[in-house]
Amino acid sequence: MQSFSQVQQVFQNYLDENQFEAAPSELYHPVNYILSLGGKRLRPIMLLMAYNLFREDIEKALPAAYAVEIFHNFSLLHDDIMDQAPLRRGKPTVHIKYNTNAGILSGDVMLIYAYKYLMKVENQKRIIDLINLFNKAAVEVCEGQQYDMNFEKQTEVSIVEYLKMISLKTAVLLAGALKMGAVIADATAKDSRLIYDFGKNVGIAFQLQDDILDTFGDPQKFGKRVGGDIIQNKKTYLVLRALELADESTKTKLKRLLSEHSENENLKVEEVTKIFDQLNIQTEAEQVKEEYLQKAFDSLDAVSVADKNKTVLRGLADRLMKREV
Amino acid sequence: MQSFSQVQQVFQNYLDENQFEAAPSELYHPVNYILSLGGKRLRPIMLLMAYNLFREDIEKALPAAYAVEIFHNFSLLHDDIMDQAPLRRGKPTVHIKYNTNAGILSGDVMLIYAYKYLMKVENQKRIIDLINLFNKAAVEVCEGQQYDMNFEKQTEVSIVEYLKMISLKTAVLLAGALKMGAVIADATAKDSRLIYDFGKNVGIAFQLQDDILDTFGDPQKFGKRVGGDIIQNKKTYLVLRALELADESTKTKLKRLLSEHSENENLKVEEVTKIFDQLNIQTEAEQVKEEYLQKAFDSLDAVSVADKNKTVLRGLADRLMKREV
Repeated sequence: MQSFSQVQQVFQNYLDENQFEAAPSELYHPVNYILSLGGKRLRPIMLLMAYNLFREDIEKALPAAYAVEIFHNFSLLHDDIMDQAPLRRGKPTVHIKYNTNAGILSGDVMLIYAYKYLMKVENQKRIIDLINLFNKAAVEVCEGQQYDMNFEKQTEVSIVEYLKMISLKTAVLLAGALKMGAVIADATAKDSRLIYDFGKNVGIAFQLQDDILDTFGDPQKFGKRVGGDIIQNKKTYLVLRALELADESTKTKLKRLLSEHSENENLKVEEVTKIFDQLNIQTEAEQVKEEYLQKAFDSLDAVSVADKNKTVLRGLADRLMKREV
Repeated sequence: MQSFSQVQQVFQNYLDENQFEAAPSELYHPVNYILSLGGKRLRPIMLLMAYNLFREDIEKALPAAYAVEIFHNFSLLHDDIMDQAPLRRGKPTVHIKYNTNAGILSGDVMLIYAYKYLMKVENQKRIIDLINLFNKAAVEVCEGQQYDMNFEKQTEVSIVEYLKMISLKTAVLLAGALKMGAVIADATAKDSRLIYDFGKNVGIAFQLQDDILDTFGDPQKFGKRVGGDIIQNKKTYLVLRALELADESTKTKLKRLLSEHSENENLKVEEVTKIFDQLNIQTEAEQVKEEYLQKAFDSLDAVSVADKNKTVLRGLADRLMKREV
């Protein structure tokens, strides 16, 4: 059983050894650039940890882990173009550093390379399962991104729709990555499904936590400006739940606040937060998040390997929720 | 052995039965739209014909044929965004009819669906070969597109570089499609390679023919304005060969003509064509094209099936060069 930092190091070494060196450089430099921006490498690390529940030789799962990381960065690259985001992890986004065409085409080639790395998995008798699993998650990520874009224009979004969107956009790739680790390790269908459920529910809990921290987090620890979602009028879980609970006049006020771009951003954040507080939204959201987290751990508990094997994965999920990773 | 129009009909039926019906419609409508614009369906039809060299039950190869058509349309969709093209087959391009973000994301999901259809091929023991083949062609198409974009900015482009670019951008997908048909039919490695070579050389000949017809074609038959490449200052085979053959003063004149956007487009076309004529470029280009075509037919001749089985594929290549398809 390898520790978080051991798995992280093994993956980083693989990534360093598998830079994109081919020609033309105009196509592959942006790929190396976005992959070099770092991030937690959460999906590949969790894939390797899922494999490590069953087997020790985690290097056997490295190509699939890299495939997932390449796919994730492809989706960030294209999302940044669609969102016209100037920065990614504090550095210029690809379409800013290079140009939009480079961003589109380099993203495309990354998506194909994700499949190329999947094909390098040694456990060939599971390749078809792996690709089917990957295809499903990849399509869902696109659908999630489309729903997210739709919601910006939609006046009414239900909580059910919101949970479906974050599930597709974020949770299914984490879930798929974890299941891929289990599949490569030849885990049973039941264990593979349990690990998928663990990942999906952790993913949803993580996203809900993100919504909570954006408004109620400690700015020093969170690393972002508190209230960013409110300033951008984002339809987060907090907003959607508040709209469900509020009386008509509060609802009208909240809708008005979240439909304009205020010149006094601090006042706007303050007013919206006050409404959240009146409706006890933070506590509600924490509860829902805890329910997803509980479901996640129940699934992990049910996986048929010794409890001590699960310590690393459980510990990572815990630290992730506390934003200690 | 099925005729061209039979194969075409079988493919069209499959395409009609496999529309993209899933939600969200904002993601999948653009996919149906671009697939409905028509085109010759050359790649899927040739894939089915390559299969048909060896086996009669061409419906077994339909999912792979559709995968190739989806991939081809994905690449057109993203290329149209990069080229800011307003029209595709006389209809508004996806980014014009919908918007750029729809074009990027719907293109992405098409690329994933290409793999989903590949996975539906019944001959499961060849799936890994198929995906490796597809991955190779797909990466090369992206590289070809990048070289094409590079050449617009590059002052010097050699004929070797140009042939490599058109080979990557166009010919490898046709070649890959043909080889996929052979692989699904469990053709030998040697026959599969010969069919690949046939497709690659036909593809290059087709592209050279395109360059020739753009300047020397019969406008009525060609369906495009003659001289379009000259007006757009495109570095075609004709231009690159003329620059190789011309004396210094002619070279300077040609470079000047092809670096400006002339107000008198007809005069520009006339002057450039005159230089081509002086240097006998059309004849040279025809010869090179014929060499590729000859190589293509030599490869097809060497495939170890009865000659009569090859009639349909050979006939299609012939009619394609005459733009009768």
